[in-house]
This record gives sequence, structure tokens and C-alpha cells, in this order.
Amino acid sequence: MISITIIGSGNVAQHLIKAISKSDDIELVQVFARTKESLDSIVEDSKIISDYTQFKEANMYLIAVSDNAIAEVSNHLPFNNQLVAHTSGSCALTDLNTNNRRAVFYPLQTFSKNKVIDFNRVPICLEAEQSADYQLLEKVAQSISNSVFAIDSEQRKSLHVSAVFVSNFVNHLYQLGNELCTTYNVSFDILKPLIAETANKIQTLSPQEAQTGPAKRNDTITINKHLALLSDENHKEIYKILTKSIIDHGKKL
Amino acid sequence: MISITIIGSGNVAQHLIKAISKSDDIELVQVFARTKESLDSIVEDSKIISDYTQFKEANMYLIAVSDNAIAEVSNHLPFNNQLVAHTSGSCALTDLNTNNRRAVFYPLQTFSKNKVIDFNRVPICLEAEQSADYQLLEKVAQSISNSVFAIDSEQRKSLHVSAVFVSNFVNHLYQLGNELCTTYNVSFDILKPLIAETANKIQTLSPQEAQTGPAKRNDTITINKHLALLSDENHKEIYKILTKSIIDHGKKL
Repeated sequence: MISITIIGSGNVAQHLIKAISKSDDIELVQVFARTKESLDSIVEDSKIISDYTQFKEANMYLIAVSDNAIAEVSNHLPFNNQLVAHTSGSCALTDLNTNNRRAVFYPLQTFSKNKVIDFNRVPICLEAEQSADYQLLEKVAQSISNSVFAIDSEQRKSLHVSAVFVSNFVNHLYQLGNELCTTYNVSFDILKPLIAETANKIQTLSPQEAQTGPAKRNDTITINKHLALLSDENHKEIYKILTKSIIDHGKKL
Repeated sequence: MISITIIGSGNVAQHLIKAISKSDDIELVQVFARTKESLDSIVEDSKIISDYTQFKEANMYLIAVSDNAIAEVSNHLPFNNQLVAHTSGSCALTDLNTNNRRAVFYPLQTFSKNKVIDFNRVPICLEAEQSADYQLLEKVAQSISNSVFAIDSEQRKSLHVSAVFVSNFVNHLYQLGNELCTTYNVSFDILKPLIAETANKIQTLSPQEAQTGPAKRNDTITINKHLALLSDENHKEIYKILTKSIIDHGKKL
């Protein structure tokens, strides 16, 4: 049995707490949170602490707070030479205080409130300074997910920026599509099967094989029709730059 | 039994032929195609024609060719006053020759070779000049899909440009993410569960509710880290414009 204390109460912390609670191999010792409300239904009251003096011993301390608070939290921890990992994609292992044995436990997924995640399928990217610590991290990760990877800080940074392209930016394109539907009085629901299939194709085809549409065909007649239809300058600018990028990629082949 | 002849042999035509072949309510009369090869395994040889003089009678003629060939094909049809529909999202009903009764039968989905589609879930957008023709189109559409909509030419144009945003552009962002992975030597596979979940969220959350990431939080520290990491000017420009658009949308709320 591996004992873990989680620091944080946001989306990532909550999803981790739920995943860990289901595992037979991990014991949740405590959760450190400034406010108890968000944890009400998922952790026993007696396990929640909000004072740095109340920490009990654990095999591992997992800092799941916002990126800009990681260094500060790690500086405040009142113990030394323990295994401390953060869960951030964009922060380096070296953002953690050297008082403890530093590591990273990064679950690469988009976590929303009120949206259940199957943690078994969430890739977890691990990094540790010491190999014994890596082995412990790996046991923890494997007890909640089937998809565990050794990823160093440089690789993790690039994964994080890639994730912004394939998730945050993609979702924003959904938002722009939704705006167009609203403007022209058609239901966004009509596009949902297309959204699902576009993501589904990429599970088996390469993005290059999966590309379709007027830019891919360099079909300037349709492209100009679309530009004439778009009245919002922001929509127009994004349409132009992404169309140009698709056409330029076609030329490189 | 409704009899249909399909004109075309590309992706859309092939997927329609397969869907229609499964329906008990529709009889496939003929397929008009310049070359037989692509249809080899899906249509009996005797049904394939390649000459405009060989058309038999059918209740409906479905033109599933590339956008820029629709007008020409419709001008060459050797009959009058028959129901003729095209399958294009970006062409108007009026692109068809007035010799026949004009209509549109637009399946809104991304069709790739070698990728099976569940046609039952493909939204089909219908438009016809005459109400009797609309009813026939509707019967055909309902016999292959559970998702049928009356959409006029203006609405269809806006759906088509929305589809470019939520599918073609989205896929291109997958490609850019893939390029970043290659550059930094990490497997694109690690991002696939994130891609699936990002599309999955939008089935139940609005794009605005589903938005996450540094731009949404206006987290300039992470944004600048990402920009410093991106070495390709095209990646950088697209990162900047989409980040700005997400931040601007946040301000509007």
C-alpha cells in the first residue's frame, strides 16, 4: 500500500482524488486545501487539512495546484527529503524546492467540473530525479491508468504546447463554429457528429491522411465564397491564416 | 420502393452507394462514373454506366461529384422535369440546370476512403423547390439516417463554413500538434485520449463551458513560455492569433 497526500482542491486535484479512492493499492492520507467546500462529497472531513503544521507522513506528496502557486507551495512544505511531485504540464521539475526529492506526475487530459473522466485511459507522464522514486511514481500511475510514460521536462513542455493546439485551440474553433451557427440561425447540434468523426478519424489515420476540405484541395472558388460569407473580422482572419497553412503544407509534400 | 441513380464515384458517392444498398426502401438503379475501378467491389458491373445516353428511369438522380463539376453534369443530363439533387454543402440549389426539378441532399460529414461511417448518425440537410419532391427526399434520407433537417441554401452555406472551422481546421491543428511531437521526439499517441475527450466534451457542454487552458485563464507566463518554445514561424503565428481570439472572447463575457 502506497500512501499519498494531495495538495490542492481544483479540477485536477478532484479528479485525482476520485481516481485514487478507487485504487486498492493507494491510501489517501490527507488533502490540503484552503477551503473544504469543493471537497465535501469526495473526501472524509477528517482527512482535509488547511494548515502546513498538520501534515502526517506519506510516501508521496502530490502538488495539484495552479502553475503559478507550485513554487510557493513547495517552499512552504514543513518537511525534508520526502517525495514531492507536481502535476503541471508547463512547469519544470526544477520549479520544486530542493528540500525534497523532486518529481512530476502529469496527467495529460482536459478536466472539467461535472464531467466524469475514465482515468484508466488518461496518459500519465512521469519524471523523477531518483530511480527509486520513479518506480514508486510508476506504481501509483499504473494503479489508476493503463497509459504511463517516462517524459522529461523538455518533452513535457512540448507535449503541453501540442496539447494547447489539439485541445484548447480546437475547442475555440468549436466556439467559432457555434457563433456562425447562431448568426445564421442553424442548430450547432447538426455539426456534432462531424466533430465526433473528425476526432475519431485521428485515432487511426495520420492528420495528413485525414485532412479534407477546400484548403486541402486548393479550391479557391469555395474559399472565396466562404470569405465573402464571413462578416466577423476575427473569423475572417482565422479562416485566412489556417487556410494558408493547410495550402502551404500541401505544397511541401 | 424509391429508385435512385447516383452520378459520381468519389468518397461521397461511394459512402452513399453503400448506405443505399443497405436500405430496404431504396433501389439503386445505376451509377454513372467515368471509370469503373473505384466502384468494383460495391456495385454490380451491369449497373455502372459512363455514357449520358445510357440513363434508365429513376425517381431521383443524385449528383455526388466535385463542386466545380456539378453545373456541367447537370447541364448534360439528357432528360427533363426529373428530380435532380446535388450533395454539396457549398453549392446553391440554383447551380443546377432548370431543365429538371432541383433539390439538395447534403450529408454533413467528413468522408475518407477506407474509413467506415455509420450513416445512421450522419445529419442530412435537405432542400427542394417543390414540396412533393421534399417529401420524397425526406423518405430517402430517413431510410439511411436518423438525423434529417430542412436547410435552405443560405443556412447550408453557413453550415458548410462552420464545418470547415470544426473539422478541416481542427484536423489541421492535429497536424500542427503532430509536427511539434515529431520535433521534440514524443509520441503523438500520448495526445490521442486528449483529442477524443475534447471532442467528447462538446457533445454535452457548450464550447464556452468546455474551454480550458492558458489563454482562457489569461495566463501570460505560460503563454510566453509556449511562444519561446515554438521555433516554427507558422506555429507561432497561429498560436498568437488563436490565443488572442480566446482572450478577446473572455473579455466579451
